[in-house]
This record gives sequence, C-alpha cells and structure tokens, in this order.
Amino acid sequence: MANVVTATPRLLLGPGPANVDPRVLQALATPVQGHLDPEFLSTLDEVRTGLKKLFRTSSEATLAVSGTGSAGMETCLVNALEPGEKIVVGVGGYFGRRICQVAERLGAEVVEVPYEPGRPLEPQRMMEALRAHPDAKVVAVVHAETSTGVLQPLEEIGQAVAETDALLLVDCVTSLGGAPVEVDRWHIDLAYSCSQKCLGMVSGLAPVTFSAKALERLRQRRRPPASFYLGLDVLLDYWGEGRVYHHTACSTLYYGLKAALELILAEGLEARWERHRQVGSLLQSKLEAMGCRLFAAEGYRLPMLTAVLPPEGVDAGRVRRALLEEFNIEVGAGLGELKDKLWRIGLMGYNARRALVDTICGALEALM
Amino acid sequence: MANVVTATPRLLLGPGPANVDPRVLQALATPVQGHLDPEFLSTLDEVRTGLKKLFRTSSEATLAVSGTGSAGMETCLVNALEPGEKIVVGVGGYFGRRICQVAERLGAEVVEVPYEPGRPLEPQRMMEALRAHPDAKVVAVVHAETSTGVLQPLEEIGQAVAETDALLLVDCVTSLGGAPVEVDRWHIDLAYSCSQKCLGMVSGLAPVTFSAKALERLRQRRRPPASFYLGLDVLLDYWGEGRVYHHTACSTLYYGLKAALELILAEGLEARWERHRQVGSLLQSKLEAMGCRLFAAEGYRLPMLTAVLPPEGVDAGRVRRALLEEFNIEVGAGLGELKDKLWRIGLMGYNARRALVDTICGALEALM
Repeated sequence: MANVVTATPRLLLGPGPANVDPRVLQALATPVQGHLDPEFLSTLDEVRTGLKKLFRTSSEATLAVSGTGSAGMETCLVNALEPGEKIVVGVGGYFGRRICQVAERLGAEVVEVPYEPGRPLEPQRMMEALRAHPDAKVVAVVHAETSTGVLQPLEEIGQAVAETDALLLVDCVTSLGGAPVEVDRWHIDLAYSCSQKCLGMVSGLAPVTFSAKALERLRQRRRPPASFYLGLDVLLDYWGEGRVYHHTACSTLYYGLKAALELILAEGLEARWERHRQVGSLLQSKLEAMGCRLFAAEGYRLPMLTAVLPPEGVDAGRVRRALLEEFNIEVGAGLGELKDKLWRIGLMGYNARRALVDTICGALEALM
Repeated sequence: MANVVTATPRLLLGPGPANVDPRVLQALATPVQGHLDPEFLSTLDEVRTGLKKLFRTSSEATLAVSGTGSAGMETCLVNALEPGEKIVVGVGGYFGRRICQVAERLGAEVVEVPYEPGRPLEPQRMMEALRAHPDAKVVAVVHAETSTGVLQPLEEIGQAVAETDALLLVDCVTSLGGAPVEVDRWHIDLAYSCSQKCLGMVSGLAPVTFSAKALERLRQRRRPPASFYLGLDVLLDYWGEGRVYHHTACSTLYYGLKAALELILAEGLEARWERHRQVGSLLQSKLEAMGCRLFAAEGYRLPMLTAVLPPEGVDAGRVRRALLEEFNIEVGAGLGELKDKLWRIGLMGYNARRALVDTICGALEALM
C-alpha cells in the first residue's frame, strides 16, 4: 500500500534508543485504550510497581511521565525548585551542564561544581560546595554521564546530603535497569530516567521517583510548580486514587513499558546488571586491544555506554558515518566539543549481547 | 508467551484517543531509529510539511512536540509569556480554564473573559476585554471546547487581535484535521493540537505552529522560555538545519504521525472535514430523536465531538459504565461539575464513520 511507512532497519549501538525485544514491539501494537479506561489505569499501577523495583524504592510517588528523559529531568527540577532558589550541580559533561540550563530557565540560582570529563566527581568536592552554600535547596549529580561514559559513585554523596536540608537529585537516564541504582539506600530524593536505554523500550516515557523529603518540599512550596504538564501535584492526582484527568496518556507507550518491565523482572534485576557488566567489559577490552583509548577512567566506566577515542589518525566522524551507511549500525558521536573526536557505543537492554560485541568490533576493524 | 500484554479491544467513541487506522498501527511497528538518523530527520521534515498543510500555514515554525496536547498548550504559553505579563483568556469550559491554570503557573497575570458553557464567546466581548487591557501580550481562545462540544468562530477575533500587538493563541486540540482550521487566514499566532483525535494517531505528539509575529516576540524576550523541554528556541535548533540534539524523539510516534498525515492528505483535507460534518450531524439528529438534549447551541456544534444530556430520568454515569462493561464502547464523561451529567461522544478520524453512528445509538437505546 502506498502509505505504509518504510524505514531502514538499523542496529542501534549508540547512546539510545536501542533496538527493542520483539515482545516489546508486539506490546506497542496493543489495541489503543483510553487514558481513563479502568483496565489502562491498572496498567499504570503495574508500571508503578515495576518502576519501584527498578529504582529500589518504596516511594509511591514513582511514575512515568509522558515525555522523554529530558522531560524527566525537567519534572524533577520544576517540582523541586522555586525561582531564586539555589541548586548545586556537579558538571563533568553534557548532561550535568543540561541540568544547569534547565534550572537557569526556571529562574534558579545555579552553583556549578566542575569536574574533569572522564573522571568522577570527588565526593569531598560536593561536600565542600554544600558547606559553602548551606542555603542550597537541591544537590544534583549525574549517575551515568552519557557524554563521557563515566559512572558516578553515589553512596558518600548521598550520605552527606541526607544530613542536610537539601534534596539529592540524580540523573539515572543511562544507568537505570543496567547498573545498580539504589534510590532508598543511597538517600536519593529525586531521580529520573528514560524508557529507551537499559529499560529496553522506545523513547517517550520518563520514569521519575520522589522521596518523602522531596514530597514534603513540594507541600511547602510558596507557589505551585511552574509547569502544569510536569507538575507532580496534578500528576499524582491522576496516578493516585482520584484518577483526575490530567493529560491523555498514550496507552501504546505504557503497554510497551509494562512489557519491558515484565521482561526485566523475569530476567532479574541483578542478573541484568551482571549481563550489562560482562558485555560492556568485553567490549572495552576488545576496543583497547584494537588500539582505541577509553575516555572514562578505569574503575569508573559505564558498562552500558562506552565513550572511546579511535586510534591515532582515524577520523572518528568518517567511520561513524560509514558504519551507518555501509553497515546500518548507529553509534553515537561525541556531544558538543567532543562531536567528531569520539564514539559512544551503547550495549543496552536487548542489545546488551555478546554477539553484538563481535558485530561492532568487526565493523570498526573493517572501516579503520 | 507469559509476558505478552493483553488489553481488551475497545471502540473508542469518547473525546480521544480514537481507534486508529490499521495502517497507522502498522507504522507504529516501524523499526526503531535514532533521533539523529538522517532517515528519521527527513521524516521530521515530512511531518512538518504535512502539519503546515493541516494548519493551513506557511510558517516553517511548525512542528510536533514530544508530548500530548497538554504539552502543546504549555509549549505555546511558555514561549509566548514571561512572568508578570498579561494574558486574556476566553473561558467557557474546562480547556479555557486549563489555559488559565497553565499561564498562572508560569507567573502570568491572567484576565478571564467568562462565557456561558454551551455557547460561543461573542467576539465583541473579547474586543472589549482587549480594549480594557491594552497591555495584554496574548489573547487565548479555545477553537473546539472539548468539554462542552462548542465550535468557536475565529475570523472576527483574529481580525481584531491582528490590529494590536497581542498574539492570538488558539487551542485546536479537537478541531485540527476534522474541521476547518485556517491559521494564516485567521491571523492565528500560536496554535496547538494533539495526535489522537481527528489526526487519527495515538496520543503522544503535539503539533504546534508559531507565526512570524510570535517568533519576533520570542526573539525579544528578556529571558529564555522557562522550559527547556518545550523551549521553541532550542526545539528549532533540532528541527532546523543545525540538527542540534535536544531530546530523544521517539521514531515510533513520528512514523505513526507520518502515516496518519499521509492518510489525511490522500483523503483530502476538505473531504475529511465534510466526512466529520456529515457523520457528526447524523449522530446529533439521531440523539435528538432519541430524546437526548445537545449541550451546545445550534449553529455552534462541533462535528467530531458531541456533548449530550440523556433523556430525563436516565443516569448518565450508569449508562456510560455499562457501555464500557457490556459493549466495550468508551464514551467520555463530563469534565468537572458536568462529570455524570452528560456524555461526550466522539466520532474522530478513523472513527468518523456512518456505521458507528448506528453502533453507538443502538447501544445507548439498549441501555437507556
């Protein structure tokens, strides 16, 4: 038929989206249901239950916002901050900087704590900043900095922030479902993620979770959050008992997320972390053996996303374009000033498979 | 397989989502592509071209935001308004009030121009309000008030606002694709819609369009828009030549929207309006013959969404629940104080078919 859409199938080995399990694709073809259909509303409850397990939290203020991971970031910030309030942000890559941009647009006073791209933020640096800014309302850290491939340890920072009045906000966009995220144990007050990376779904939904401390802050706001679409107060009226209409949630995406969560929990969260760890570590050792240099420091490398510099003399941009054009394989470019300097190779969710390590390394070898 | 999601198929005759054409469902199973894949980026261009035809505008600042119609409303408001600026809003139903709520959260000064639910806003009322508030930056009107079933004439209001410095913002969530929307001819500066009503797609994308006057206002802002996710400045960097990463647009939804737009343009926009008009008018005359009372005044009734009061003595809530439980047919309840007083029956997009008029009227007769 003339109007059937065609799109070239790609192997998605960039920073997300990843390819999705055929069972998730199948769930996307679930008959469309209304956003107030009792059956669909039970699905939202199941999604919440699954997300609580993923985030390792007992907080009922856990849900998936109708937007991408960027909407998740904005949801946390717009609910936690009022204009003029202070936020301290660790910035060692693109997504740390993005938090600052979003907070600035909301009229917050932003204190940047810069750290070296490729290295984690030293917890002491954050504690010093917090001592220097005791009026900070929020401390924000990126758990998995997708622009540099760095995994940020959170336990010490979580412990320190918990002893203050500030809320700890953590970007788990790339880590959730692929590496340990312990919201309750690490004293995380606000966290957000996305659907298209280690959760193994298409993009379009943003899991978020709010602690009791974060909810108390929300209750004490002088003015409601600056956003209605992302306002937790009105979102919870829809996700809660009242089922008050807020927006027309897309059943297609939520049924897809429900299927993805069921696959994750059937595999077991720890087993899934281990799978990502093994596959990522294999990729990283193979890349090093091929003469590439890993951008992130040893001991702090993300398993699901590897930022890697090609061997001297290899044009990263040319190889990346050839991968797409000749092999139908997508890998990510660098972000900002790193654009054509490095590749970002993702082995996430359904794509975190040993066979794909050989696929990508073979293709890279052929093109270098 | 254990994890395949099951959902009861429903006939969706409420205020949206509607059921979608099987060819659109098929497009939702298009292989997932990355948000910076050149092939996907061409798809965004095609979506823009289709949306310009639907909105009847030549403005290149036409795109689909990654969120529902509510996100479209917020996109228009957050880009058009700065804190403390004044907006005049016609309020004759739930969605007029919603515009006020969103604008208030953004810190705007809101002037409500109330009008009777079920009736349109008299253009003179809006002109008087504009004369009384010459400092208003935005005038907002709902074209198709989904809570009451009223179609708002826009030509006179558009002419009047065009002679001032204010921007005209119009909610086309329910009208776009099902009734004439003439953005350029009616001097509309900002308009938003949704994907799941007369466009015939699932929810999750919000078409928006901005006039040259609206873009000039954006350039003259003292501060950037309060939202990054919905900020037109950064959205246009992604939708424009630069293709700067902004968020992970969901290829599934955009391929679905592309398919839906192709179906609309193949049918012809005028033919599609006429189909909605005929089917809606047939439904309305049958409902009246059954002793129901149409909520909207004659001459101002939406074709695609009919708000209707059941005959005296019939419990609207009971019948609505029975329709879902016994017939798997969804119709909408009233919103707010109208909740169990009326039904909202939608015949939109793929569901705007004569056969479904008989289906819903037959079911209603059986249950009353």
